Amino acid sequence: MTQLRTLREIERIFRKKLKKKQLLWVDGSAEHGFTTKKNRDIFRKVLLIPRVLKEIKKINIEKDFFGQKISSPILICPMGGLTQFNKKAEILISKSSEITETPYFFPDNSAYSLREIYNKKKKFLQCYLHLDTDLDFIKMRLEQADKYNCRTIGINVDSPIRPISYNKMDTGYDSRNYVLRLPGYYKRRKLDPLNWKTLEKIRKLTTKPIILKGILSVEDALIATKTGVNSIWISNHGGRVLESDLTSIEQLPKIKRGVKKNIKIIVDGGIRTGSDVIKCLSLGADYIAIGRPIIQGLVADSQLGVTKVLHLFMDEIKVALRLCGFQKISDLSSSNIINNINEK
Amino acid sequence: MTQLRTLREIERIFRKKLKKKQLLWVDGSAEHGFTTKKNRDIFRKVLLIPRVLKEIKKINIEKDFFGQKISSPILICPMGGLTQFNKKAEILISKSSEITETPYFFPDNSAYSLREIYNKKKKFLQCYLHLDTDLDFIKMRLEQADKYNCRTIGINVDSPIRPISYNKMDTGYDSRNYVLRLPGYYKRRKLDPLNWKTLEKIRKLTTKPIILKGILSVEDALIATKTGVNSIWISNHGGRVLESDLTSIEQLPKIKRGVKKNIKIIVDGGIRTGSDVIKCLSLGADYIAIGRPIIQGLVADSQLGVTKVLHLFMDEIKVALRLCGFQKISDLSSSNIINNINEK
Amino acid sequence: MTQLRTLREIERIFRKKLKKKQLLWVDGSAEHGFTTKKNRDIFRKVLLIPRVLKEIKKINIEKDFFGQKISSPILICPMGGLTQFNKKAEILISKSSEITETPYFFPDNSAYSLREIYNKKKKFLQCYLHLDTDLDFIKMRLEQADKYNCRTIGINVDSPIRPISYNKMDTGYDSRNYVLRLPGYYKRRKLDPLNWKTLEKIRKLTTKPIILKGILSVEDALIATKTGVNSIWISNHGGRVLESDLTSIEQLPKIKRGVKKNIKIIVDGGIRTGSDVIKCLSLGADYIAIGRPIIQGLVADSQLGVTKVLHLFMDEIKVALRLCGFQKISDLSSSNIINNINEK
Amino acid sequence: MTQLRTLREIERIFRKKLKKKQLLWVDGSAEHGFTTKKNRDIFRKVLLIPRVLKEIKKINIEKDFFGQKISSPILICPMGGLTQFNKKAEILISKSSEITETPYFFPDNSAYSLREIYNKKKKFLQCYLHLDTDLDFIKMRLEQADKYNCRTIGINVDSPIRPISYNKMDTGYDSRNYVLRLPGYYKRRKLDPLNWKTLEKIRKLTTKPIILKGILSVEDALIATKTGVNSIWISNHGGRVLESDLTSIEQLPKIKRGVKKNIKIIVDGGIRTGSDVIKCLSLGADYIAIGRPIIQGLVADSQLGVTKVLHLFMDEIKVALRLCGFQKISDLSSSNIINNINEK
Repeated sequence: MTQLRTLREIERIFRKKLKKKQLLWVDGSAEHGFTTKKNRDIFRKVLLIPRVLKEIKKINIEKDFFGQKISSPILICPMGGLTQFNKKAEILISKSSEITETPYFFPDNSAYSLREIYNKKKKFLQCYLHLDTDLDFIKMRLEQADKYNCRTIGINVDSPIRPISYNKMDTGYDSRNYVLRLPGYYKRRKLDPLNWKTLEKIRKLTTKPIILKGILSVEDALIATKTGVNSIWISNHGGRVLESDLTSIEQLPKIKRGVKKNIKIIVDGGIRTGSDVIKCLSLGADYIAIGRPIIQGLVADSQLGVTKVLHLFMDEIKVALRLCGFQKISDLSSSNIINNINEK
Repeated sequence: MTQLRTLREIERIFRKKLKKKQLLWVDGSAEHGFTTKKNRDIFRKVLLIPRVLKEIKKINIEKDFFGQKISSPILICPMGGLTQFNKKAEILISKSSEITETPYFFPDNSAYSLREIYNKKKKFLQCYLHLDTDLDFIKMRLEQADKYNCRTIGINVDSPIRPISYNKMDTGYDSRNYVLRLPGYYKRRKLDPLNWKTLEKIRKLTTKPIILKGILSVEDALIATKTGVNSIWISNHGGRVLESDLTSIEQLPKIKRGVKKNIKIIVDGGIRTGSDVIKCLSLGADYIAIGRPIIQGLVADSQLGVTKVLHLFMDEIKVALRLCGFQKISDLSSSNIINNINEK
Repeated sequence: MTQLRTLREIERIFRKKLKKKQLLWVDGSAEHGFTTKKNRDIFRKVLLIPRVLKEIKKINIEKDFFGQKISSPILICPMGGLTQFNKKAEILISKSSEITETPYFFPDNSAYSLREIYNKKKKFLQCYLHLDTDLDFIKMRLEQADKYNCRTIGINVDSPIRPISYNKMDTGYDSRNYVLRLPGYYKRRKLDPLNWKTLEKIRKLTTKPIILKGILSVEDALIATKTGVNSIWISNHGGRVLESDLTSIEQLPKIKRGVKKNIKIIVDGGIRTGSDVIKCLSLGADYIAIGRPIIQGLVADSQLGVTKVLHLFMDEIKVALRLCGFQKISDLSSSNIINNINEK
Repeated sequence: MTQLRTLREIERIFRKKLKKKQLLWVDGSAEHGFTTKKNRDIFRKVLLIPRVLKEIKKINIEKDFFGQKISSPILICPMGGLTQFNKKAEILISKSSEITETPYFFPDNSAYSLREIYNKKKKFLQCYLHLDTDLDFIKMRLEQADKYNCRTIGINVDSPIRPISYNKMDTGYDSRNYVLRLPGYYKRRKLDPLNWKTLEKIRKLTTKPIILKGILSVEDALIATKTGVNSIWISNHGGRVLESDLTSIEQLPKIKRGVKKNIKIIVDGGIRTGSDVIKCLSLGADYIAIGRPIIQGLVADSQLGVTKVLHLFMDEIKVALRLCGFQKISDLSSSNIINNINEK
């Protein structure tokens, strides 16, 4: 086994192990993938200002996540279809999540059910739902979230329609043929996609924190907070849904300025290193979510790989935080960056 | 037969099937081709703002085209010399145009005559004329447009002189040697190129909508509307005429602001995906015209390929429209984009 | 003999014919060559606005050059060391200059003397001098300019010291070993380089138009005009002298605005096509000088190649001028371009 | 032995001689190395304005360095771990430093001790210290600086923690296994890293000039000057410490404006040619430090290579200075550049 020394090394091994069609699935992105690429490139426009000679005793990157202590601002994105790479994918990821004290948004388009993933000791399991306007179904899902002790309810809002992804469509590789079994999600008859009205009803059905994943517009962020959601997850879905050329990082400061202070901001998209994380936090994010790096760890070395990815992220965050002259996440603000993104 | 799954796949097959010299002819562009390349690149500067959780019943991308319902905002560009690729090129394109309910600007530099393309059932045939100052000839062409039931009169305005195209000139490949037969257009003795004065006379000779194709300057757009034309077709001719480094997308908002609301704006140049189309419409275009993708479909799979290209475009437009949170084309406006083009 | 169809084709043949070391000599540029590359890239920032349907009878690109009619705004740059490629290099270039009615700045670091190049019929020979503070030598050179009927006196001002050129130095290729014979210029003992004071004296010694070649700063342009020179030749010497990252095109509008209207502005650097020329003229240049394309023509096909390069340039200028909607050079102005160069 | 003609040639030979793992160590940079690359690219945004026909007698690039005449504004960076390339690395570099009259910051993480490097004739030896809060150790080091006649005290401030460097970590190449012997620096028990309070004490312990190396923020520069340091060394450590995407060149004018005139500004990062040096000086730097070019010279040709690098730099500086129209370093100012860096 090659040693997994860095996040770059893990990605290299992942690229070596997978077949081209599988890689194109993971790299799957809307149309030609310009948005996915921009997710990475945009970080070059946010500059960190290092500070020196500060008296720093102990670096602490812990955070509170809706009442629970977590070991870093990192969250694990919901990701479907992973049993094509490892028959126990979600089970292993959930174990790493617990070991590393990192919230995991377990998606209902998994090959496993929430019941199968669950055990009593788990503290970091979040549920992530693809909902429509069927209130009976919604109630059933919320009850499960209660039963299986999910701290928060993540809700998908950015995928009401099958996207155009050349990388995935051109190869004719249908991941559904390779997963362990098709999730119930796929079997359900499609009703009208979820909308704001139904969301208002959902808000009344649960007291758990609601997190809306997939928001990019300031207007939607404002509507969401009026509807009473607790957290906005800024995301372009890894560039997989719409070739919008619009990144989370560009919208983050605008949304942060727009919403009330008690609304937690999660951000994802192209975050691959510790300095990326520090930049997001400085721009106003409360939490950072990672997706593809988790798959890379899973493919590179199964559960150990996932755990390694999370530990490496934490190490990198600590180093970058220290070099910016801070000892805790809450010290970060827009004053320790130069934001060269042209804001319109 | 490889399956034609996406527009990217169709372009790939097209590039595989043609010889280098033929490809260079299709890719033919003024001088070194920087303008043709910029036609694609400029779309990265226009960002779509996706909207979520809107209540959307049915996506409708139909449009009215001068009194006729068409199935999408897509138009088929006039293209000459296509019988070098398929002996029945224009006949097949016209059939696809009817099947998909997409207007086709049939060029008078085709190997076929309007009479040969025409049949009584056709509803989407438009004529596209290369005119000079010979009024007798003009009258004859306008009478044909009446006789063969063309709904609009497209007029070429951007090619009064043979352009400098290294891709075409360097190979010494003269498409005229490979077409089915030389169109009458080439045989005519050259008079003075068309000018505004003659256009004024043309305006008086027909009540059909007149569309001027090949305008980039705001001044020309204004003169055109004063002359009484019904539509401005903003185009740099696919970058094939002048290495101007100026794209339609850059000029579109300026021209839209300049002309009266009843003037229909058509735009072309580098539009290859659904998100490109939605960007153009948001910037103010009424219709979007495509050229090279039609050739790609024709080469990849004859009439079926052309039809497939048009259907794929419609699918992609629907998906992008839906992900922007809208259910019909007329909902789009500049408020759903961020325009990062530096406007001078 | 391959047919020389375009300027791009001629460059391709030139690159095929020369050895690597020779190519590196021609491509020779200060330090790493970023400035030479920028000379080309900067044209992408100047956009031409094409105009349509104008009534244009006859395209005329002739110019007056200090009292003499020349067939286009093109001038031939002085270039030393060319007999390494063709034993009769300057003689052939001068012949092409006469045939095409294009001024040729014959450099005194040529393997030939002005006397050898001269014949009575020549009308387009200009002299180009490398001077120091030795007034006797200066007088002798000015007398030769009179005797051999040079219409203007070009004076080198940007090369007072041997530049740092990695392309030339790394190969150890010393062109001086390969030229027909070393010009007198190299044999002279080096005095103090020319300065403004000496230039004032030169101004009093001749009534011929004086052209200063190699100016980039607005301040120097102003000093030059106060000294009574007739023309400013804006140039970074093809990027061969200083890795300044500053191009002629960037400085052209500033210098044009700064100097009096009677001062003729020549510009060179990276001008390779008709659209490049039209852009320079629109930005305020009176004449455009080309260097490397002449060498390319010479290598590709001797005198015929040089003539071909000049004719192709003229053709391309006519086409680009026509497509901008004009029939003569003097119609061009900053109103037919969009200048996206960031001016500081 | 290939002739070392230029700095580019020396880098080429260096790249040829080293093994991949060694090269990756030298090219080692924080995370993916975007910052290291930007160190080079940023120079394209600073344009030199050449001036002509000035009367210049003798080019003089000498400087005063805290009371001592040095032959150019060049300083030699402290660099650890060099005995992996040459067993006598620091000894040879110090000899070249003396021969070329260039200050050398001898690092205490060298395989040699200051005593071993020292001899009585040396005039250009500076010491460079990695300090913590242990005052006894600090006093001992300062005494050594006195004893071995170091003119200035350089202090590392930007590396309080082991950085994340994929280039170095992925190969598993640990330079510590290949150096002659481990420096005492590595053996010391790690205390709290140096901080501003301890620096205040250091200031009282020595009258020698104190130079803080590794400052990028304007705030830190101001604190430093209040603490009584004599010189600010602006540096991102060659991009090796933090993937900040922030370069010295971007911060240089801001820091220069912020601090008092008597504070000497040193700058490093990506400086590879004479024009780079002139740009830095014009932006406000007093001295320019080079690191990797010294290693390149060392690997290419041992002590002769190091000396050659320094001499080539001096030659290039002279040429660039002359072409900007100046005869001494102090003539340079922001008025001879166009600074296109977007300042926020």
